[in-house]
Amino acid sequence: MEKRVAVLQGDGIGPEVTEAAVRVLEVVARRFNHTFHFNYGSIGGEAIDKFNNPLPEETIALCESSDAVLLGAVGGPKWDQNPSDLRPEKGLLAIRKHFDLFANLRPVKAVPSLLHASPLKEEVVRDVDMVIVRELTGGLYFGQPSRKTESTAVDTLVYTREEIERIVDKAFELARLRKGKVTSVDKANVLQSSKLWREVVEEKRKSYPDIEVEHQLVDSAAMKLITNPAAFDVVVTENMFGDILSDEASVITGSLGLLPSASVRSDGFGLYEPVHGSAPDVAGKGVANPVAAILSAAMMLRYSFGMETEAAAIEKAVNTVFEEGHFTADLKGELDRFHSTKEWTDKVINELDL
Amino acid sequence: MEKRVAVLQGDGIGPEVTEAAVRVLEVVARRFNHTFHFNYGSIGGEAIDKFNNPLPEETIALCESSDAVLLGAVGGPKWDQNPSDLRPEKGLLAIRKHFDLFANLRPVKAVPSLLHASPLKEEVVRDVDMVIVRELTGGLYFGQPSRKTESTAVDTLVYTREEIERIVDKAFELARLRKGKVTSVDKANVLQSSKLWREVVEEKRKSYPDIEVEHQLVDSAAMKLITNPAAFDVVVTENMFGDILSDEASVITGSLGLLPSASVRSDGFGLYEPVHGSAPDVAGKGVANPVAAILSAAMMLRYSFGMETEAAAIEKAVNTVFEEGHFTADLKGELDRFHSTKEWTDKVINELDL
Ligand SMILES: CC(C)[C@H](C(=O)O)[C@@H](O)C(=O)O
Ligand SMILES: CC(C)[C@H](C(=O)O)[C@@H](O)C(=O)O
Repeated sequence: MEKRVAVLQGDGIGPEVTEAAVRVLEVVARRFNHTFHFNYGSIGGEAIDKFNNPLPEETIALCESSDAVLLGAVGGPKWDQNPSDLRPEKGLLAIRKHFDLFANLRPVKAVPSLLHASPLKEEVVRDVDMVIVRELTGGLYFGQPSRKTESTAVDTLVYTREEIERIVDKAFELARLRKGKVTSVDKANVLQSSKLWREVVEEKRKSYPDIEVEHQLVDSAAMKLITNPAAFDVVVTENMFGDILSDEASVITGSLGLLPSASVRSDGFGLYEPVHGSAPDVAGKGVANPVAAILSAAMMLRYSFGMETEAAAIEKAVNTVFEEGHFTADLKGELDRFHSTKEWTDKVINELDL
Repeated sequence: MEKRVAVLQGDGIGPEVTEAAVRVLEVVARRFNHTFHFNYGSIGGEAIDKFNNPLPEETIALCESSDAVLLGAVGGPKWDQNPSDLRPEKGLLAIRKHFDLFANLRPVKAVPSLLHASPLKEEVVRDVDMVIVRELTGGLYFGQPSRKTESTAVDTLVYTREEIERIVDKAFELARLRKGKVTSVDKANVLQSSKLWREVVEEKRKSYPDIEVEHQLVDSAAMKLITNPAAFDVVVTENMFGDILSDEASVITGSLGLLPSASVRSDGFGLYEPVHGSAPDVAGKGVANPVAAILSAAMMLRYSFGMETEAAAIEKAVNTVFEEGHFTADLKGELDRFHSTKEWTDKVINELDL
């Protein structure tokens, strides 16, 4: 197959980790007889510096002519005091909205050789294997009115039935490919939007009789992610709850630096990026952990290009390198073999390049 | 001193645990020469059963003629399918709003003899000692419009400057009595209400130059509560974020059953209740953990009655009983001495009744 990939490296360690992912994708292309065209564009802080716009028209055009987008990370202290329209994260929000990337998928899976790095006890996290499905283009982030005066401020949480239906469908479909359970998170004892949410889930479940469904209030979900995270399979929730819960979930296994994410719509187009941020403190030193970016590339192969075998090959290679005891420096613990971004990526490439 | 306490036992284990707290308060009254008048009222599910109203007029009148309110817990499967106006938690929301109890204080402190029950590693939670200050009468829970049709639903997050100022003041005042640090949690990179929130904190800090201030985004706060909870002292945030984060924080030390809370306004009047719920599964068996209710009573003495010595005496007695290795059955771990609600309360009373 021939595919066009827009690479938006962004800020901080973004360029280093996307470079690693691109190198891995090139090997996959060779091994599986594909052609990937990589075209680079600007986003976030570096786009503000170059174009005075966190999501320049050029970047939108590039993404529109691509089959998928691979993103590094955005943000850094340099732009922290900027007015809100000139902040790096505006680029992220804008690209999600422009391309209607309504489904954010964040898998969190315990890596046996890394459990020592978890703040939780090993027995609590050992069996964690979940995906958080966060609605990404609705709710409080985008609702109108959203305004502020000297004396008062308002944000609006709106959801339409259609917005809820499509994300709930995503969750059910995903559960079918996994352990068959959906946990829908809301605050239906207080919020009207959550009541509509719960209604839609109750209707939709009729079309997926094979899937187990549970409803959980957001506050108790925040507890259960800590007390019994292994009980979750697919968790589906609205934008803001998903923001909070997916970040909470991202630290429980001790491997935040390893977590990929996908933001997709229904036709296969999607944006793939590490969950971790731009880590300005270690940028440019060649020590960034490339795993999240590499696994994001694997998700791109799976969800946007339908290349399941290729995606699984990357994931297997990453696991093998871990099992052999090779880590990057961010994975704290009593390990003696630390590798640079490039060395670690080379090991994955060696595994792949049979 | 002579004080009137409204006791709203509520549902499930509510009656058992408030009874324990009342017994402890009676001993405190004897030892320190006070007179407490306890008057009982209905709230939640049992109020729905008796009055068809989760917060009957009688209860409001009782609380209005009292100096403070001691509450057990509300809710249970019996009322789960009720329409929203006839649900137990409506009683809670209504009493908070009616009495303008805008400041919810939830201390979370590691108990050395109970760290084995934490899902987190001991070294992560050992030094946890924080208070979450949650705004309780504004934001998404109460903003208008809040409505739902077949096809769309809306909730509104509104805050006025005054609402933010008074809760932020509470947090700063509390930090002065503690470790001198305030972490303000918002989503100022996206929400207008959070921008106003952050502005107010920046203004207010000028009046508290002795207090260290940090701002944290809600998603990263959700992570840090797990990776480094000991770094927090006072955490102040709006209603919904506070709901999620305080419940998240409540499980990290493994002692959810021990956590008290206070919901207060500026004149000293307040409502005191355990963080835990009504636990219908163990209700009526005499095994409920009374500690959260007893410590809530201690908070009442401190915040509503200005009885610091008396509050500290209760807290000390509770700690002593723990240190002697006496626990109720909910505290999992390899313990061999479990006590009933009454036995355990008797031990605290013995400690107090010198
Ligand atoms: C940067 C910010 C707007 C963004 C969000 O909250 O969506 C980020 O936290 C994320 O989760 O991708
Ligand atoms: C019952 C519910 C409305 C309530 C809330 O969310 O405020 C509860 O979760 C709490 O935190 O006291």
